[in-house]
Amino acid sequence: MDCVFCSIVAGELPADVVLDEPDFIGFLDRRPVFKGHVLLVPRDHVDTLLELPPRLHSGLTETTQRLARAAVEGLGSQGTFVATNNVVSQSVPHLHVHVVPRTKGDGLRGFFWPRTSYTGAEESAGYAARIAAALGPGREG
Amino acid sequence: MDCVFCSIVAGELPADVVLDEPDFIGFLDRRPVFKGHVLLVPRDHVDTLLELPPRLHSGLTETTQRLARAAVEGLGSQGTFVATNNVVSQSVPHLHVHVVPRTKGDGLRGFFWPRTSYTGAEESAGYAARIAAALGPGREG
Repeated sequence: MDCVFCSIVAGELPADVVLDEPDFIGFLDRRPVFKGHVLLVPRDHVDTLLELPPRLHSGLTETTQRLARAAVEGLGSQGTFVATNNVVSQSVPHLHVHVVPRTKGDGLRGFFWPRTSYTGAEESAGYAARIAAALGPGREG
Repeated sequence: MDCVFCSIVAGELPADVVLDEPDFIGFLDRRPVFKGHVLLVPRDHVDTLLELPPRLHSGLTETTQRLARAAVEGLGSQGTFVATNNVVSQSVPHLHVHVVPRTKGDGLRGFFWPRTSYTGAEESAGYAARIAAALGPGREG
């Protein structure tokens, strides 16, 4: 078994587990952004968020909510940063949602990366059109 | 109506809309981390992820998946960064999921913030216990 998160799921590697349920487990990131930083992982291996099967869609959101609430109630944080890297910057190719406790003035700005700008309405409309085209017809009401 | 995202939902403020569906809309962030950076927003106002009602749990994951796929298929990105700020660093208090196109070597490291360490197994176990206690008994199989 080559996947480190599958090894944690299987109990073959130690972890500080905070949540152990039929579909998901949650455990501490060993190199936290802030202490109490949890990784939420589906037990069944999927590489990225894109491959998560429909039966786990609701649970992923609901379990993330509970972890975010626990960061506030259990650790006294004021908020959370919830993030998933898909493929690029994804250190372990087994879907994991980072739930990071946040407090105002903690020195981390959620999006402090340099922002860019569109050259104008035409460029932004072009990007929107390419994304919309890739999305296809969508879901009607 | 004071919420800027509610105003976009209502059609009172312009936006580059990429997805317009009964429960969610998606539109370009006006100050993108990378061009094609989309914000996914539930039409009904909720402040943060924690307040998203159960009927939208599955749709949030499924719609995020489609936007992440569209960033790859429509924009030629290699991956995505998917993130939500709850309360701290949350610029608009209406839940929004950032879907940011990523490409290797794009200069953005997903988690390039300084990481910290636990002082040892005792400290990490303590954090895990506080989170687990706040989670409560959890869901059994």
